[in-house]
Amino acid sequence: MTLDDLPTPCLVLDLGILRRNLAAMAAAVARHPGLVLRPHLKTAKSADVARLAAPGGGPITVSTLAEARYFAAAGWLDQLYAVGIVPAKLPAVAALNAAGAAVKVITDDLAVAQAIAAFPGPLSALIEIDVGEGRGGIPPGDPVLPVIAAALGSRLAGVVSHSGHSYAGRSIADMERIAEAERQGIIQAADRLRGAGHGVPIVSLGSSPTALHARDLAGVTEVRAGVYMFGDLLQTQLATHELDDIAVTVLASVIGRSVARNTLLLDAGALALSKDRSTESAPKDWGFGRVLDLDARPSLGEAIVARAYQEHGEVRCQTPLPMLPLGSRLRVAPNHSCLTAAAHTQYHVVDGGREVIAVWDRVNGW
Amino acid sequence: MTLDDLPTPCLVLDLGILRRNLAAMAAAVARHPGLVLRPHLKTAKSADVARLAAPGGGPITVSTLAEARYFAAAGWLDQLYAVGIVPAKLPAVAALNAAGAAVKVITDDLAVAQAIAAFPGPLSALIEIDVGEGRGGIPPGDPVLPVIAAALGSRLAGVVSHSGHSYAGRSIADMERIAEAERQGIIQAADRLRGAGHGVPIVSLGSSPTALHARDLAGVTEVRAGVYMFGDLLQTQLATHELDDIAVTVLASVIGRSVARNTLLLDAGALALSKDRSTESAPKDWGFGRVLDLDARPSLGEAIVARAYQEHGEVRCQTPLPMLPLGSRLRVAPNHSCLTAAAHTQYHVVDGGREVIAVWDRVNGW
Repeated sequence: MTLDDLPTPCLVLDLGILRRNLAAMAAAVARHPGLVLRPHLKTAKSADVARLAAPGGGPITVSTLAEARYFAAAGWLDQLYAVGIVPAKLPAVAALNAAGAAVKVITDDLAVAQAIAAFPGPLSALIEIDVGEGRGGIPPGDPVLPVIAAALGSRLAGVVSHSGHSYAGRSIADMERIAEAERQGIIQAADRLRGAGHGVPIVSLGSSPTALHARDLAGVTEVRAGVYMFGDLLQTQLATHELDDIAVTVLASVIGRSVARNTLLLDAGALALSKDRSTESAPKDWGFGRVLDLDARPSLGEAIVARAYQEHGEVRCQTPLPMLPLGSRLRVAPNHSCLTAAAHTQYHVVDGGREVIAVWDRVNGW
Repeated sequence: MTLDDLPTPCLVLDLGILRRNLAAMAAAVARHPGLVLRPHLKTAKSADVARLAAPGGGPITVSTLAEARYFAAAGWLDQLYAVGIVPAKLPAVAALNAAGAAVKVITDDLAVAQAIAAFPGPLSALIEIDVGEGRGGIPPGDPVLPVIAAALGSRLAGVVSHSGHSYAGRSIADMERIAEAERQGIIQAADRLRGAGHGVPIVSLGSSPTALHARDLAGVTEVRAGVYMFGDLLQTQLATHELDDIAVTVLASVIGRSVARNTLLLDAGALALSKDRSTESAPKDWGFGRVLDLDARPSLGEAIVARAYQEHGEVRCQTPLPMLPLGSRLRVAPNHSCLTAAAHTQYHVVDGGREVIAVWDRVNGW
């Protein structure tokens, strides 16, 4: 089976690029002695990818209970479930832990901390700290921090932050600065808790750009990152990836063309690509994805999917497009690989060529 | 089981609203004697919905081979696969037809028409006509039209158009005007083919807004429409639905809150809602969805999901938001129900209340 044979649209994963991205992150983390990488599997959602990204059942991060169950069953026991927990989800987590897993939850809320402490089953929790993203978490100096810690008592496992605002950075210097601010914030929170007599075994921060570019992570015990595995068109504008570091693409067939409008139509539309527009506010707006040839080369110039209907993707370009015969195959590099991958249930794995060497499953949903 | 018990996020379908929307379309179609409704099941992708929308195995429209296979197996044999076909997909269609289905394909390309004519298996095709959308199809007066028809020969089943540009309209008068232009275009194409000696049994057009508002469909044999079943926030701005005509919502839990920022966080983010921004250019921009209470009432004012991270939806509002306890449940009305529904594998069916009276599956993917 080759890329010429697969039904379209479908998701293609290049194993060689994946391995290279994993090695780059491993090298970045190895600059910091003792630092643990806890890969976020919300991007890949695949045990086959996890075998490479978190070998030996190493620590992982997950974003859904579906991922927690799937990876626990596949042998990854040390998990951080990095979305604010609510009491209704505690029984599912405790059940996994009672069966041998160590799924840690996160919270920034006193009532939830009390519910965690009171829950009759094995649980541990990290307190979520806001280091500048302004999404979840409490500021490092918030008066409620020690109150939440006291409520958690022996179930307190550490502190956790996310620097999603690093995606607004555009240079290595930006990433270094954001990473240092994140480090200082999370350390401040950990120090306050230690000063109040709590053990804080885990000090966890992350985002792919800051994990790759942080200069100093003293005091941090682990970093979390996910999108670095696959890269995407936004990452190519964050000083982390180049176009040929993007490991996932959508394989599509040409289903229409118009010389008058200088357009091609693909059978990859909003459902196959997602409607993510992450590059809309980036220096280079790639529409709903950049259109590459069947060998993932940019031989169509700066062609993009400019309009995404449910099952139609309309390709436009500033320069004349080749009026390819219908049925010709192209590949689309995604704006945001987490969202595009989530539109598919399988990876068709290649290794630099067109031959499909494996098919890997994903765990979507909740 | 009630909406208070379901794991979140998940998709909720209100059966009473669905039935009302189906009745409204049935009444709109019944204004035109002899006109057939061929519901588009790309929105619902569910045999349970199809039993109500296309009872008795009536004619349907599909957008993927996965839908074609699923609905054929469930008894809907008369299908129009309304995305431009390519030769590599002909064997799958012919196999369904050889097993008893009548799946018709569409094309606007001479080489594809020749491939259809030459294919050794049961196939029939409609020629796609562009009536103003500028996506796929050839203009009604295009010189290649009779050439494609001649290539298809006895496999020509008719002409088909889509008036997706009706979504740029904002009033019933707009829809009436667009519908009439569509009718004139498709009739012109049909008349040209008949003048050249071809039978044109099917003259098919559609879009939910024009199907609901067309004043005259003389000469048209069938209309296709899909999103009318569920409605959405864009449809509420196209003179077709009101807020309480939206049949699908995403059930979510509050997982965070900030008095300082006047925000709530939901566990419904980009994956549960989709990143569709259809209302961005509509008179009222609802962000990534309008936030309703657990009974789908707008008691939170004009609260919207303003930012959609992978698993976090950040709710904002011009007026103060209620700082609900974490774990509280809300519902999010979608911008575009086709895209939001496609993020889920099941419908949790209610009928005006909170009790879940059924769980219906969907056929996603390709």
